Amino acid sequence: MAPVSAPTTTKSLTAVEASDIAALAAGCAIFGTGGGGAVYTSNISTERSLTEHGPVPLKTVDDLDADDTVILMSGIGAPTVGIEMLSSADQMGVMVREAERMLGRPITALMAAEIGGSNGIGPVGWAARLGLPVLDADGMGRAFPKATMVAMNVAGVPCDISVMADVVGNVVTHNTVDIAWLERHARATTVASGGICLGAHYPLTAETARGAVIEGTVSRAIQVGRALLSASDPVPAVAEALDASVLITGKLTDVSRRTEGGFVRGSVTIAGTGEDRGRLQRIEIQNENLVVLEDGEILVSVPDLVTVVDAETGHAISTEMLRFGQRVSVLAWACDPLWRTPRGLELAGPAAFGYDVPYTPFEGGRR
Amino acid sequence: MAPVSAPTTTKSLTAVEASDIAALAAGCAIFGTGGGGAVYTSNISTERSLTEHGPVPLKTVDDLDADDTVILMSGIGAPTVGIEMLSSADQMGVMVREAERMLGRPITALMAAEIGGSNGIGPVGWAARLGLPVLDADGMGRAFPKATMVAMNVAGVPCDISVMADVVGNVVTHNTVDIAWLERHARATTVASGGICLGAHYPLTAETARGAVIEGTVSRAIQVGRALLSASDPVPAVAEALDASVLITGKLTDVSRRTEGGFVRGSVTIAGTGEDRGRLQRIEIQNENLVVLEDGEILVSVPDLVTVVDAETGHAISTEMLRFGQRVSVLAWACDPLWRTPRGLELAGPAAFGYDVPYTPFEGGRR
Repeated sequence: MAPVSAPTTTKSLTAVEASDIAALAAGCAIFGTGGGGAVYTSNISTERSLTEHGPVPLKTVDDLDADDTVILMSGIGAPTVGIEMLSSADQMGVMVREAERMLGRPITALMAAEIGGSNGIGPVGWAARLGLPVLDADGMGRAFPKATMVAMNVAGVPCDISVMADVVGNVVTHNTVDIAWLERHARATTVASGGICLGAHYPLTAETARGAVIEGTVSRAIQVGRALLSASDPVPAVAEALDASVLITGKLTDVSRRTEGGFVRGSVTIAGTGEDRGRLQRIEIQNENLVVLEDGEILVSVPDLVTVVDAETGHAISTEMLRFGQRVSVLAWACDPLWRTPRGLELAGPAAFGYDVPYTPFEGGRR
Repeated sequence: MAPVSAPTTTKSLTAVEASDIAALAAGCAIFGTGGGGAVYTSNISTERSLTEHGPVPLKTVDDLDADDTVILMSGIGAPTVGIEMLSSADQMGVMVREAERMLGRPITALMAAEIGGSNGIGPVGWAARLGLPVLDADGMGRAFPKATMVAMNVAGVPCDISVMADVVGNVVTHNTVDIAWLERHARATTVASGGICLGAHYPLTAETARGAVIEGTVSRAIQVGRALLSASDPVPAVAEALDASVLITGKLTDVSRRTEGGFVRGSVTIAGTGEDRGRLQRIEIQNENLVVLEDGEILVSVPDLVTVVDAETGHAISTEMLRFGQRVSVLAWACDPLWRTPRGLELAGPAAFGYDVPYTPFEGGRR
């Protein structure tokens, strides 16, 4: 059992350059804990956006002025669908204009709803095309499947409006009594759109953002990505950069996965190889990796982070890309302290996903 | 086989008074062909609105000025849910204000999306409370289950915007590429709201309304209702007012009904009594009565109209109120000629409901 040290100190960046996107993509895939959408296509489109439109300034919450309005942008839906149904170039422009019309004031910065997967990368490319900065922060510090599972909700900040657009050209706005109703309506809209949409929601000001977002996560994703891309032995390098434990290394021997209700659900089984031979772990999935079990015991659960990485390259494998026979390592590490508060656990602890088990904070684990 | 005569000539009214609402409710229930929502509660609330706010002027399409904007208002969803989930007093005000914001111009009149059931009555009460007139017209000349099945769609008029509101206070707007996408998204929103919503959609001007709505239907519903309420032998009186045939009189011996996907679906069986003894008819339902079968033969099908009425009182029984043992008569009559055009049949003929049978115009039938 490895002792838990303080997270690696992250130096904040002031802009994201086209040359950072490969590292951002690799890092976001890691923080995606299996969800947030595979990074392959958004990596390409975002890099191209920054090549064409230049670097995107990164702002901190302290940089925001009183009249700034930040809006969250993300894909919403089943990542299995997102692999094939790509977004169109003007989807996010339509959403931002509609959000401005609803709010009656200009949007001055974008923020990733979640730093995980393609949802962590996308806002950087969209911001480049719109000529806007991005907040060096996100709403989760990872990826979660539901709109309710955001730091702003933990902090009690209400979501005033939401705009969704699909690739067909349909635009839907939601002005709901609370974010639980927004999640319900947004999910229904997503399913009606074929399984995936883009959404702009949760407009924030300097005042409401303070203490209600997880800061520094864009910089941190780039730095974890850089550690991964520059390492000769990637898995230990990533684990060190994250202060994560390697739970098992082995082979994927079973993948049970279905797309339903706008989510990907299922489980995967990993049979240990090498020094883990004879061990067996199962991971439960709802878009993200939620719970890791071994010998009937829960090793890690949400809101702590679990990411399945390629045992050779160290790159994260998102849940919709898991396949029989893949050689993988499973990484686990502690979540942001915000998720361990009573309100954080109410929104994103095991019970919020239907697991009738108490939450035990992950403090470093086996091997 | 009775010959078909021209429909009873309807004298257009210039206003709806509180004292007309009972007749309007009885008539709309008849034109509902089983759907549009049971009229009991909307009858009460609409009469009260007119008592408090005064009569509602009825306008014709010719009365509209160049700067008038009419919007369709209706309940959307499963009538079984509508029995229990009533609308709130401010739902329609919220929708009209949101529609005005989206359009950038004031709404100057309301129109019923369908003259059937509570959806035929509701707009009159909402107009009273908003101080607006109502167009003496509707989008169907009856009730149909889907937003696509409207005269404006037959005429090729696009639906620019849609606003929906539920009783919880959630407001959803749709700006879709066509009305088929609107139906899909609106239905998803309805299900997410618990099964029923109010909607304002299809803004029309004097120019777009002309030839694209079914005119005179509010007056006609009131006049059919008056014929029903004043008759000593109601069923023949209603049949005469509608130029309808009585297909069978008997007892409901089987009701198979389920609420799914925002619709009521199922079928009912009527065993003939009296001079119809030994005969058996089955009616197929999707919110409305769609098809009547006897001895494996289709007697009537959509878009022609079929309404089940109480054999004693002549009042229509909506599909969600059908119960084993009820003594009923089944009325059938010809639809507006618009629905018999190729485009009309494409949108609302038997095939549009999944019945792989040719449409045979109903020209009066058995008994």
